[in-house]
Amino acid sequence: MQGMNFNITQPNQALSNALLDKIDNKTKPLGALGMLEVVALQVGLIQQSLTPQLNQPTVLVFAGDHGIVEAGVSPYPQAVTAQMVLNFLQGGAAINVFTAQNNMRLRVIDSGVNFQFPPSKDLIDAKIAAGTRNFLQEAAMTAAQCEQALSRGAEIVDAQVAEGSNVFGFGEMGIGNTSSASCLMSVLCGLPIERCVGRGTGLDDAGLKKKMHILAQAIAHHHLSDSNAMQVLQTFGGFEIAMMVGAMLQAAELQCTLLIDGFITTAALLVAVKLQPNILHYCVFTHCSDESGHKAMLDFLGVKPLLNMNLRLGEGSGAALAYPMVLAAVNFLNNMASFESASVSQQKDAD
Amino acid sequence: MQGMNFNITQPNQALSNALLDKIDNKTKPLGALGMLEVVALQVGLIQQSLTPQLNQPTVLVFAGDHGIVEAGVSPYPQAVTAQMVLNFLQGGAAINVFTAQNNMRLRVIDSGVNFQFPPSKDLIDAKIAAGTRNFLQEAAMTAAQCEQALSRGAEIVDAQVAEGSNVFGFGEMGIGNTSSASCLMSVLCGLPIERCVGRGTGLDDAGLKKKMHILAQAIAHHHLSDSNAMQVLQTFGGFEIAMMVGAMLQAAELQCTLLIDGFITTAALLVAVKLQPNILHYCVFTHCSDESGHKAMLDFLGVKPLLNMNLRLGEGSGAALAYPMVLAAVNFLNNMASFESASVSQQKDAD
Repeated sequence: MQGMNFNITQPNQALSNALLDKIDNKTKPLGALGMLEVVALQVGLIQQSLTPQLNQPTVLVFAGDHGIVEAGVSPYPQAVTAQMVLNFLQGGAAINVFTAQNNMRLRVIDSGVNFQFPPSKDLIDAKIAAGTRNFLQEAAMTAAQCEQALSRGAEIVDAQVAEGSNVFGFGEMGIGNTSSASCLMSVLCGLPIERCVGRGTGLDDAGLKKKMHILAQAIAHHHLSDSNAMQVLQTFGGFEIAMMVGAMLQAAELQCTLLIDGFITTAALLVAVKLQPNILHYCVFTHCSDESGHKAMLDFLGVKPLLNMNLRLGEGSGAALAYPMVLAAVNFLNNMASFESASVSQQKDAD
Repeated sequence: MQGMNFNITQPNQALSNALLDKIDNKTKPLGALGMLEVVALQVGLIQQSLTPQLNQPTVLVFAGDHGIVEAGVSPYPQAVTAQMVLNFLQGGAAINVFTAQNNMRLRVIDSGVNFQFPPSKDLIDAKIAAGTRNFLQEAAMTAAQCEQALSRGAEIVDAQVAEGSNVFGFGEMGIGNTSSASCLMSVLCGLPIERCVGRGTGLDDAGLKKKMHILAQAIAHHHLSDSNAMQVLQTFGGFEIAMMVGAMLQAAELQCTLLIDGFITTAALLVAVKLQPNILHYCVFTHCSDESGHKAMLDFLGVKPLLNMNLRLGEGSGAALAYPMVLAAVNFLNNMASFESASVSQQKDAD
């Protein structure tokens, strides 16, 4: 099975002490840079370097359509997936603004949108099919499609790494994909579906109730266990999530730094973690989304995100917004003076 | 009294509806950019513009020495204040790294350091005296010194605004200044000193106990009420805090956006708020510091900070780190497409 072909190892921890020494000797009180110090240590270990570098940061936005939308789980029509992809290509979306501000590249991937896009330099055509099937009735995709999606995701990362990138933000667009993510979360975290469902793009109370009812039905219908993550992924979709799983796995295998965005991206990571638990060493969790369920997902993974700014936009927007923090971590490690180099006195004994 | 010469008015709220309309019509679910939407509205109102611009962002770092250090309230020797100012001027400190990364100017102000610095293009000499007096025995400064500090702070901002800046981060350096800030907080927030004292640059348990004891003595000795903020400021100092108060008041009066950093900077703002409550409309609270007491201070002001990253470094480092978030708020307001301009369908009625 494709998911098992990856081989992600834990970074060698031998460099930890030297990295911690370097961090502690910077001209600042011990530990005073808080979470930035944690990120500096992590990126140093990922790159096995006391002077890590973030090269050509790239946000990959995977887009796909979902058969489940015909059940009425979203307040937006399915056509918005394609419309938003066109918006990305025209530079008008939030992710365009934030990647441009933070000097990041943006690559949009058609993983399975129900629309034929004209060629564009920023669009990667990796379409598996024009949307998944409705998982209320049948699996969202075939096993072959699911494996193909993972492979294509891995190939996309290969190409970006070959072009010089070593840090990736992951994002997505797909009307209906909070429904896929909620089902993945419920099965893979072993949590009741009620704890995994949120308002998505903005359901009202009645819409939320309906979505919960539909997803509870789907969960009951397929009756899966968390022991076969590929089957869970194949069942609930979507193409953009599956392709992101492959991209994440490959990025970690190539010792890149992964910037994990919100609810749907973290759901993709849940699948990746089941396949290759060591992937977690390569992940920076960029924010806690306002989408109900994301906090429980982060708690399940035992991780703490950098930002808590009530974002719930998707597109990788949180990853792009948090990138300056990751860069700041690497920059202080590389560019701050030490107590010795700056001739600054260290802490004296208590007087 | 100098503090009363400022005249800060609430921004005209008439533009609110137009700003909210613009925000809500961007191609994103309603409210999906969370705290960035709050900041976009705020900066739009401050500048009275639907297309606000952040010009020449500048971090002002005020430095001063404190007589109270002779009582043994810090684990670092007083000489570190001057050493760190030299580190700022040589580009080796955290604030240098973060301002450089985020394209911000840095100006270091000698408000009252116990050292004679050689001239430097990035250093503003506004020294009131070579450190405050020990407030365990007497007021940290005279009334005339306190007013002079406010005036000079205001003049510094005047000059920066004349050069084109309309957004300021505020930071500080001064061994012993968490002690001043704790006393300001205790009196101005009406909280027992125990709730206002933290480990500063890194006191151990015994050092923390000693600091609390000393500051409790000082508070009891001066026995001030919160009704005369200038007297409270004069009593507990320091020069860098007083000068920052003047700078903040002037920046708000000139309708700039103020980026408030951590514990000491927020203590300075407490004084400014007592003098001119409307200053709060101009303040973006950039982070919640790990210094014990900062959260209670933010709660007292009724404000929510952008970041919670366990920072406790000072120097304006949190303000510099959070600046990309403020810029992102302005950028999405100015540069994102609307549903109409991007031909994206809006939310449909529930189906």
